[in-house]
Amino acid sequence: MLPEGVAIDPLTGAVTPNTGEYTKRLSEFRGIYRDQKAFDALLGMAGDLVTYRVVEYRAENSDIFFGTTTMMPGRVGDEYFMTRGHYHARRDRGEIYYTQSGEGMLVLQSRDGQTREVAMKPGICAFIPPDWAHRSVNTGKTPLVFTWCCGQDAGHDYDEIAAKGMRTLVIAENEVSVCIPNPKYVT
Amino acid sequence: MLPEGVAIDPLTGAVTPNTGEYTKRLSEFRGIYRDQKAFDALLGMAGDLVTYRVVEYRAENSDIFFGTTTMMPGRVGDEYFMTRGHYHARRDRGEIYYTQSGEGMLVLQSRDGQTREVAMKPGICAFIPPDWAHRSVNTGKTPLVFTWCCGQDAGHDYDEIAAKGMRTLVIAENEVSVCIPNPKYVT
Repeated sequence: MLPEGVAIDPLTGAVTPNTGEYTKRLSEFRGIYRDQKAFDALLGMAGDLVTYRVVEYRAENSDIFFGTTTMMPGRVGDEYFMTRGHYHARRDRGEIYYTQSGEGMLVLQSRDGQTREVAMKPGICAFIPPDWAHRSVNTGKTPLVFTWCCGQDAGHDYDEIAAKGMRTLVIAENEVSVCIPNPKYVT
Repeated sequence: MLPEGVAIDPLTGAVTPNTGEYTKRLSEFRGIYRDQKAFDALLGMAGDLVTYRVVEYRAENSDIFFGTTTMMPGRVGDEYFMTRGHYHARRDRGEIYYTQSGEGMLVLQSRDGQTREVAMKPGICAFIPPDWAHRSVNTGKTPLVFTWCCGQDAGHDYDEIAAKGMRTLVIAENEVSVCIPNPKYVT
């Protein structure tokens, strides 16, 4: 593909032109939130909401690619809408997340048990080292939009986080977001 | 290095924290502009101005890295302040340039003689394919600030552009920037 000026809308996450997108819906997060009753109640009341959308610009002749993730605001009990969380399939591949609008928390953990959370807000470019699992959490009242960039061969490994969860939860306490150890985390 | 939230100032290009920076000054562009008299006059009058600054965040354990380039506004005759222009040393490494503030033109050319120019303005993420030489030109009246991201092993090959120039010049005609074929380009 030729050089291109790709427009990124910081409020909607639109990428123009783009080479593909997908959305994730609330029903795909069954079993992930600790408050199952709140999950069922929200699903029954609001329907199968889109919780986030990923749009990418992937040139077949490039090593790196980029795109946006646009996360809707919302809560399930005292937890927020969030991404699934994943390691990269290739353990030597890092990533950057540049927040365009909204506010959130980037939750990270390494294979050897370290944890770290990075606040997401406009102007912050989060560095995600290779082999650190990462999950984005929208802690605000508006969409959280960030631009990401990584190697096309980084790949995704969702299985470990899907099976074990993450070591840290982000919860709302009196309308303030707080990071706490996940009591159900399986070491 | 651990995960980090790196602040990028869209107006100054400051990167906090960062791992290094360098500046380029006008005197390093001797012989590059076509109006040698204007070059000498500006150097004599204004001194050895900083024309651009590059600040990087490079983690030794990551495949990719990122940073900012902040280009001062200015002209040498009818040409603008610009970067040296380069290919990557590795021919399979692309890059992205996300404009934070200001306006400019990204001038590109491939090894086989294709040329392309991409307008730089806030919100535009320029995709630079592998093995396309690229030069940024500040066509505005304010600093041009962009965030870049590429593989740490991409490397730089400045020699060919330094020896031959680029196929396309960006010049000011009646205060409008225009792209023209470089009459002195050595094929």
